[in-house]
Amino acid sequence: MPVVDIHTHIYPSSFVELLRSRQTVPYIRTFPEDPDSSRLIILPGEDDPSMPSTSRGRPIGPEYHDISQKIAFMDQHLIDISVISLANPWLDFLDPEEAGEAARKINDDVNALCAQYPGRLYAFGTLPLSASADIIVAEIERLTSLEHMRGVIMGTSGLGHGLDDPALDPVYAALEKHNQVIFLHPHYGLPSSVYGPKASEYGHVLPLALGFPLETTIAVTRMLLGGVWDRFTKLNVLLAHSGGTLPFLAGRIESCIKHDGHLKQEGKTERRRDVWDILKSNIYLDAVIYSDVGLKAAVNASGSDRLMFGTDHPFFPPLELDVPEWHSVAANYKAVSSAFNDSDSEANAVLGGNAIRILNL
Amino acid sequence: MPVVDIHTHIYPSSFVELLRSRQTVPYIRTFPEDPDSSRLIILPGEDDPSMPSTSRGRPIGPEYHDISQKIAFMDQHLIDISVISLANPWLDFLDPEEAGEAARKINDDVNALCAQYPGRLYAFGTLPLSASADIIVAEIERLTSLEHMRGVIMGTSGLGHGLDDPALDPVYAALEKHNQVIFLHPHYGLPSSVYGPKASEYGHVLPLALGFPLETTIAVTRMLLGGVWDRFTKLNVLLAHSGGTLPFLAGRIESCIKHDGHLKQEGKTERRRDVWDILKSNIYLDAVIYSDVGLKAAVNASGSDRLMFGTDHPFFPPLELDVPEWHSVAANYKAVSSAFNDSDSEANAVLGGNAIRILNL
Repeated sequence: MPVVDIHTHIYPSSFVELLRSRQTVPYIRTFPEDPDSSRLIILPGEDDPSMPSTSRGRPIGPEYHDISQKIAFMDQHLIDISVISLANPWLDFLDPEEAGEAARKINDDVNALCAQYPGRLYAFGTLPLSASADIIVAEIERLTSLEHMRGVIMGTSGLGHGLDDPALDPVYAALEKHNQVIFLHPHYGLPSSVYGPKASEYGHVLPLALGFPLETTIAVTRMLLGGVWDRFTKLNVLLAHSGGTLPFLAGRIESCIKHDGHLKQEGKTERRRDVWDILKSNIYLDAVIYSDVGLKAAVNASGSDRLMFGTDHPFFPPLELDVPEWHSVAANYKAVSSAFNDSDSEANAVLGGNAIRILNL
Repeated sequence: MPVVDIHTHIYPSSFVELLRSRQTVPYIRTFPEDPDSSRLIILPGEDDPSMPSTSRGRPIGPEYHDISQKIAFMDQHLIDISVISLANPWLDFLDPEEAGEAARKINDDVNALCAQYPGRLYAFGTLPLSASADIIVAEIERLTSLEHMRGVIMGTSGLGHGLDDPALDPVYAALEKHNQVIFLHPHYGLPSSVYGPKASEYGHVLPLALGFPLETTIAVTRMLLGGVWDRFTKLNVLLAHSGGTLPFLAGRIESCIKHDGHLKQEGKTERRRDVWDILKSNIYLDAVIYSDVGLKAAVNASGSDRLMFGTDHPFFPPLELDVPEWHSVAANYKAVSSAFNDSDSEANAVLGGNAIRILNL
């Protein structure tokens, strides 16, 4: 059974050029103190000029845009197929008039990268979410004509007001109509104040380990409360990082809804699909969770037929030089083998079979 | 085997009087539109005068302070022993000069309530955390002389700067010395901006279901990163709501630490106890999670010998009148029976045996 990585990012050269042309977040810059290395700065909190340049953002090398390095990484980690996606922050930051053209260019470029390695690469497309709904819908339609596209990647801000904004309905309708999965991925995290005054001593741990998963959880809970899946019953969403925290908190979310006086008054506690129904009907989860404890919870919440292996490459590389296998990838492989230690068929489904079936690879 | 509820709150009369005397959050008020019912308002976000009074805070009746109602609730739900605790926001809001005296009064009152029902009630004490460390430590010492006290309840702000503030070290040292468990409980949530513009349409769901658990997770991760358990290796903390999201995110937290360039530079990636070690040695979890999916993850993370049943009474009452059994309690009972459907001994341990052993009831 082939191994498929559905959470693996690329910045095609056109996107790298775009980031290099910018002076504000997000951007790529080579600092005078370290002229041989570029750094990628994607969050306002990473752009503090008082920090040494080696602490700002992260180093960015050819592994971000050179597709042959992606293939080498796949070969090294026994990954047969990758479904690549533009990494955050996608095109969220562009002016509306630029976004449509940029999305077309990037989607064509990513599709062309896939074409270089037939059968090994597919992709999630990028949407021009700062543009008008008709431009977004036009790109969703156009993506169906690009041979290697298998859905779209999307952040949590949607058109700017979150994924429970009814203005997104035409976008959801088009995605549902064309059976395109949304790969929902965090980027914005939480306000830095929530991490306390010592947060900078802890590197990026708090925003990455906690802010990202909660951002995803808030976004999907808002979709649920906003009735997105009541209006679009066949809309499918693949949640990054095994759902953020959704599998663990689903019971609490459901209990809080059932016990909410305001929702009860509005008649919204009963007339809706519950969290568990949506977890088992509309939500897919990646297996980027780094522990069998988390992976088992994800399986118990949505079913082993709805999880798909991923690596988050090129993020979380080993900090040591010349390590052949990435620790982060090994942790996700180990979580699968440990969670399904008595079922090869379930493990194979999560490692590749589900992705092949769900994404029609 | 007896059933023990270790997550069950009380506002003794002295605390209710204190809240009634106040004009700013937290306070208890009877609104002119509804003179027969009082409302408890504990968060700034619940205090919007533009909201109808029936949406501000929550109704508060005798179930919050009348201990006979606690006993009736216990009898109705087959709970033999309760370890009661003052509910949030405890005494965090008091001026330093008031806090010490208020804590002594409330701890004496709660201890006296326990004495009315010998063998059925124990309590977690309240600390005067806005006072100086010596006053806090003195109250910890004094609590050892109160017969029914079995630890302390604490919020996430500590002395005001969070639980990774080294100024708390004398408090941790005193609690470790006297083998007093900290029951760590959320109150402050997250800034309301993270829930988006439609949040008020969703009642209290987003802050309660997501903000509370993440607040707990951030607090405990900050303790971990701040080295609290490296300095106080025998300090025990009972986490509310099955650890917030810690069991699910432990793998990601550990991976983010191991892959953080800043922590590596500082030599902090290796020389420390890891999350799993602390989950199995210093952390206890309640079983207030409302699903077997979450409960199994909690058990897998820290062990079935470290989980303790709870109800969160008097919060999450049924919205219908005259319902004999609370849905929220039934959900937590069902999670235990479903998670341990082939092990009565593990279920009994979670329902009561662990609490009796760990808290010496």
